[in-house]
Amino acid sequence: MKQSQMLIPTLKENPADAEIMSHQLLVRAGYIRQLASGIYSFLPIGRRVLSKVEAIVREEMEKIGAHEMLMPALEPSELWKETGRWTTFGSELMRINDRHGREFALGATHEEVITSMVRNEVKSYKQLPLSVYQIQTKFRDEARPRFGLLRGREFLMKDAYSFNESYESLDRTYEQMFEAYSNVFKRCGLNFRAVIADSGAMGGKDTHEFMVLSEVGEDVIAYSDTSRYAANIEMAPVKRTYTKSDETPLEMEKVHTPDQKTMRDVADFLGHELQKGLKSILFKVDEKFVMTITRGDHEVNDVKLKNLYDAELIDLASEAEAREVIGAGFGSLGPVDVSEDVEVVADLAVEALVNVSCGANEEGYHFTNVTPGKDFQVSQYADLRFIEEGDPSPDGEGKIQFARGIEVGHVFKLGEFYSERMKATFLNDQGKATTMIMGSYGIGVSRTLAAIVEQYHDERGITWPANIAPYQVHLLSLNPKKEDQKELADVLYNTLIEAGVEVLYDDRKERAGVKFADSDLFGVPLRITVGKRASEGVVEVKERMSGNQYDLEQEEVLNYVTNWYKS
Amino acid sequence: MKQSQMLIPTLKENPADAEIMSHQLLVRAGYIRQLASGIYSFLPIGRRVLSKVEAIVREEMEKIGAHEMLMPALEPSELWKETGRWTTFGSELMRINDRHGREFALGATHEEVITSMVRNEVKSYKQLPLSVYQIQTKFRDEARPRFGLLRGREFLMKDAYSFNESYESLDRTYEQMFEAYSNVFKRCGLNFRAVIADSGAMGGKDTHEFMVLSEVGEDVIAYSDTSRYAANIEMAPVKRTYTKSDETPLEMEKVHTPDQKTMRDVADFLGHELQKGLKSILFKVDEKFVMTITRGDHEVNDVKLKNLYDAELIDLASEAEAREVIGAGFGSLGPVDVSEDVEVVADLAVEALVNVSCGANEEGYHFTNVTPGKDFQVSQYADLRFIEEGDPSPDGEGKIQFARGIEVGHVFKLGEFYSERMKATFLNDQGKATTMIMGSYGIGVSRTLAAIVEQYHDERGITWPANIAPYQVHLLSLNPKKEDQKELADVLYNTLIEAGVEVLYDDRKERAGVKFADSDLFGVPLRITVGKRASEGVVEVKERMSGNQYDLEQEEVLNYVTNWYKS
Repeated sequence: MKQSQMLIPTLKENPADAEIMSHQLLVRAGYIRQLASGIYSFLPIGRRVLSKVEAIVREEMEKIGAHEMLMPALEPSELWKETGRWTTFGSELMRINDRHGREFALGATHEEVITSMVRNEVKSYKQLPLSVYQIQTKFRDEARPRFGLLRGREFLMKDAYSFNESYESLDRTYEQMFEAYSNVFKRCGLNFRAVIADSGAMGGKDTHEFMVLSEVGEDVIAYSDTSRYAANIEMAPVKRTYTKSDETPLEMEKVHTPDQKTMRDVADFLGHELQKGLKSILFKVDEKFVMTITRGDHEVNDVKLKNLYDAELIDLASEAEAREVIGAGFGSLGPVDVSEDVEVVADLAVEALVNVSCGANEEGYHFTNVTPGKDFQVSQYADLRFIEEGDPSPDGEGKIQFARGIEVGHVFKLGEFYSERMKATFLNDQGKATTMIMGSYGIGVSRTLAAIVEQYHDERGITWPANIAPYQVHLLSLNPKKEDQKELADVLYNTLIEAGVEVLYDDRKERAGVKFADSDLFGVPLRITVGKRASEGVVEVKERMSGNQYDLEQEEVLNYVTNWYKS
Repeated sequence: MKQSQMLIPTLKENPADAEIMSHQLLVRAGYIRQLASGIYSFLPIGRRVLSKVEAIVREEMEKIGAHEMLMPALEPSELWKETGRWTTFGSELMRINDRHGREFALGATHEEVITSMVRNEVKSYKQLPLSVYQIQTKFRDEARPRFGLLRGREFLMKDAYSFNESYESLDRTYEQMFEAYSNVFKRCGLNFRAVIADSGAMGGKDTHEFMVLSEVGEDVIAYSDTSRYAANIEMAPVKRTYTKSDETPLEMEKVHTPDQKTMRDVADFLGHELQKGLKSILFKVDEKFVMTITRGDHEVNDVKLKNLYDAELIDLASEAEAREVIGAGFGSLGPVDVSEDVEVVADLAVEALVNVSCGANEEGYHFTNVTPGKDFQVSQYADLRFIEEGDPSPDGEGKIQFARGIEVGHVFKLGEFYSERMKATFLNDQGKATTMIMGSYGIGVSRTLAAIVEQYHDERGITWPANIAPYQVHLLSLNPKKEDQKELADVLYNTLIEAGVEVLYDDRKERAGVKFADSDLFGVPLRITVGKRASEGVVEVKERMSGNQYDLEQEEVLNYVTNWYKS
């Protein structure tokens, strides 16, 4: 393609709102442009790269027998009401009325749509298992869109859905999808990990996220320093490895602690380590009040609390609620003699403590020398805290370390969450109506693009992996006003194009410096420069990623390029 | 692909709301399913056919140097307000608020978005001309969605936009697009005509529609029976070929015509031909009252009226307005002594009349023996009526005939409509800021699919043209329980797949009758049946369209298929 005829507007300056490299470079190199907050246009070279990722996704999906469909973006609210998600999905779901006042969701995901279709069309176990997918624009009204394509409000996604007759069959489909996802991200050149994850608003239980390792990732991965174990930090269990303190339990005392609000305040005031205080937090778990007790240096993980109670909704109680139910505000809560309306659960670490402090459920007072079991009882000890670096790995091998990741894929075992609510049944081989077992599987296609750039760039621009680059060769004619340079560049362009090589040809009347800078910014893997030695039939080839460069005779160019892409 | 693993739900009965063949067959054969009124899902074989059309469109677009992009569906209302279309597009434009209350249009078309991008990114004549396109879901809230994919509310469209430095340059781009469109529809196997059209709500003047000839089309095409002339009936001019009547003008008389409301009523009551009465209609043309006078047997064409006044808005006056301005209701209007607030324009045919009747602007009265020029004056005579069958063709060759057409493509010379309102300028080669000249070009991708089915079907199902069919071969194993049949079918399937042939393999445990009926319904061009003669290595090949069938040795199959698709 001749660059003079294409819309590839490059910028010297970073856009003001672009904090991370993928956002900066994709904008500066003319791949994308923002239309509104979290909403982007893909310019021609951006569309090309997107198509490369799409093609890989399609190939890997077809390989495992998933078939492509295309579902609408306008989804009738009735379907979302059947599953309850019209309410629970919250304000991320964009809603629109048609001219007759009928409500629609703007497709954020398509479980309801595909389930309503399959319940109408699939009647028999003979038609199962069934896997379908689509590549389609999705809409989510993020509260804080940012980081360019990483957290947008309109984005391109591949979503797949499977329908199985049993959990065993789902396990097999899940395996295949897992494998296909690994292949997709490998072919995209990404350094990623599949991590155990929480299923969030999607229903279902077993689920993995595919995380591209990156410092700008919004998720924290807890992984073992010696094994393959990796989980989203929300999901990593903490092993019960605490040793009971050998201190002698003392008499509990009530101490005046005026204006001491935080755990740190109280610990300093009472003169003890942070971990010798108890952190008491009041939650509302499906309308029930639950007080969690953790060690002062630990953080409560509300996903674990939610799973402990198998709850639908979980939220912090308000301070007003705390005062009403317990009689004291946030800084003074504690498990001793707490109201009977409140259930107390404690983290496993708490059981090992002796002579610690906690709030006295009275404004401005704390207890000291409190010992669990002696001074208060709990309904149960459970794993309630976030794992920390240095904790033993849940699989028993090695210690936990943290890394940040960008979530580019997600595979879910939905089970019967949707099929039960929407009555999607089939007749099994005994002729009995049976609820279908479902899975759902997403890849953020546009987000994957950004993740690739996060891993493939240097100080001068993008360094695309070969499979993803918008073109295979960037051909530069340094001074097209010189007859011999223009002629040789034209010849090479035609030769390469005829051989099926994807070539971007910089035929613009620009300074050499501008052309080199733009070329580095775009990140095409091979650059071929036709310059001063054109008269001798010699050109320069440069590898974008390694920086290696060679002079080649014009006759060698096609062979060189073809072999380079083969290896 | 093995049919047993695919979601291809076929129906024996037509869906209740499906009035036309493409709607019936695409649903019955499992290509599409309705999700809500005018909103469809494409099932796997539907997605395949859609992809075939998309691929043809992409090839033809790239051939003329248009580059693919992808713009968002969420379009900020501010842009639409710049061009005024936030108001003028009316209730077909779906509107949505984000969580912060910011208004967006749900992309019905993208002139505003692309113009806002180009005005930011293109500065110099060196960057022009520029053509970009996208294939993307569009939203239009049709008042009466119907006919399946022909008039939907969410549909797939290819839209292209060109930016030129001059009208001459636009002419060249328009020519190329016209040619590319012709190629697309030829490759889709369609019988179509490019017709002169009205630009409607899009702004601009010169425009052609690509119409697929079909009895179910919603548009009427006026074409010459001997030349290449063809226009949307709205746009076909009527030649001035009327001969002045040689009657002697008589004295005008006022006649009581109680309860005679329609042209036909009055003509019968007064005892004359329909064409001896004048039809008087009161319009509001951009807030001005205009009365149109046509012959009683002619119909006013409001597009011609709108163009005559170069108006933004045109509407029928209400009867209340008629009474207020003229002093009489609809059945009694006429041009004689009409209020000075009303401008009277008449169709060319009126000038030739003598001694005709018209309303007397007084309830229940008409004038007879009225002669234009003698009894009333008009501000001008102009071409105001719809052309009719038998009228001379506007190009002077032959007579007009009518046909119905489905609009599948539309090319517009927008000129400066958008670029002027949105201040999209560039520096010309003299360094002077100049308004860009634009064009826009659309293809209804999903609608094209339906149009193809309208032209390619018989009483048993769809008869896809080879370029568009979801698969090249439909392989049937009649009784897969019989070892030899299953074995031979499996061998053929693998042979064809390995050779790159697209095969749908009916491996289901269904009766032969069901398989044949489904196969005819799907419409794959070649059917290969493995049946009783499998033991001899003989199969039956049948051409879907012609019905021709042959027995083939298994060794001949691959060659036969390959040659069939080459020719």
